[in-house]
Amino acid sequence: MREVSEATIRRLPVYHHYLLKTKEMGIAAISSTQIASDLNLTPIQVRKDLEATGLKGKPKVGYAVSDLLGAIETFLEWNKINPAILIGAGHLGYAILGYQGFEHYGLKIAAAFDNDFAKIGKLIHGKPIYSIDSMEKYIREHKTEVGILTVPASSAQELADIMISAGIKAIWSFAPARITTSAKDVIIQHENLASSLAVLFKNINKKSL
Amino acid sequence: MREVSEATIRRLPVYHHYLLKTKEMGIAAISSTQIASDLNLTPIQVRKDLEATGLKGKPKVGYAVSDLLGAIETFLEWNKINPAILIGAGHLGYAILGYQGFEHYGLKIAAAFDNDFAKIGKLIHGKPIYSIDSMEKYIREHKTEVGILTVPASSAQELADIMISAGIKAIWSFAPARITTSAKDVIIQHENLASSLAVLFKNINKKSL
Repeated sequence: MREVSEATIRRLPVYHHYLLKTKEMGIAAISSTQIASDLNLTPIQVRKDLEATGLKGKPKVGYAVSDLLGAIETFLEWNKINPAILIGAGHLGYAILGYQGFEHYGLKIAAAFDNDFAKIGKLIHGKPIYSIDSMEKYIREHKTEVGILTVPASSAQELADIMISAGIKAIWSFAPARITTSAKDVIIQHENLASSLAVLFKNINKKSL
Repeated sequence: MREVSEATIRRLPVYHHYLLKTKEMGIAAISSTQIASDLNLTPIQVRKDLEATGLKGKPKVGYAVSDLLGAIETFLEWNKINPAILIGAGHLGYAILGYQGFEHYGLKIAAAFDNDFAKIGKLIHGKPIYSIDSMEKYIREHKTEVGILTVPASSAQELADIMISAGIKAIWSFAPARITTSAKDVIIQHENLASSLAVLFKNINKKSL
């Protein structure tokens, strides 16, 4: 199979969201030109992105909206649920625990861990908060492979090391620090707000030239 | 000037963060091969990305770390501070108000707006929280052009419309909804966690093939 670019993968959930709205409006088929116009992309880009799912639009008809929704879901494997834990129930952790819709995107946060006694033992958005000291044991017992890190920069690397030694295979980090590991089979994805800001400002400055 | 890709722009703050640490360690020059190895990229990719800043590495010496830091800062215009407001002081809003370092990346959040009387009139991380009813007037008086939207999906479009009619030119939206506008001179950038998750899971599945 052809390698699909990260940019295309990032856009597929955006198409999916848009197509859901389209379907809700009772529209059964849609052209790449229409999608491109509504999402501020070029029709060529849209056709190329959607080809990654294996589906092609038909001339003069476009894409069947339901088929395209299904093809995106299959391609992104949203039917497969990955259990995860969240480390750090601060404001960002709360916001992520309360984020509606992760389960539609293949992620189920099963538990959260924190070192604040005021939070330990409570439920936040229906998820139990456990002591950070029990994290390692939890990961081993539940064979959890995905961890979301929402802690301050100062403790990010230390906690990541413990997570990885206990068996975590993928870390989605929101901590403003760059985490590294020598483990070759572990994926670390940094959510970097500075990167998003850089894109935003470049677009603002491009516009004002 | 050659068009610089969004992927390159997203990576430049990552290089910057890495180079700051390098500089702190007392290292004056670094090769693209070393950068690539530490950041899990290819040397060709690194050289191509850094060329966007106008700086080229020297054979056998590499890049002067301080020069490269300066070139990235200039390219991303981090010296220019864009004042912004934040709409919605919920958990995500709190987390963003408390995010250390936005001012290094050209963003200064001057004020936040919310509809919760318990928050209005207070300071969060040193930023004043005003009533959402006063947002329109504030934007007009301060000629604010950048707005960060951290509200529920249900009120995102309505608030974006008010922001744009008052003069906002760029919206950075964290709301789980797709905002649209007919205003051609307004940039809307959606921060989409589903997109990040899609990339993470694709990388996990690629690894396990």
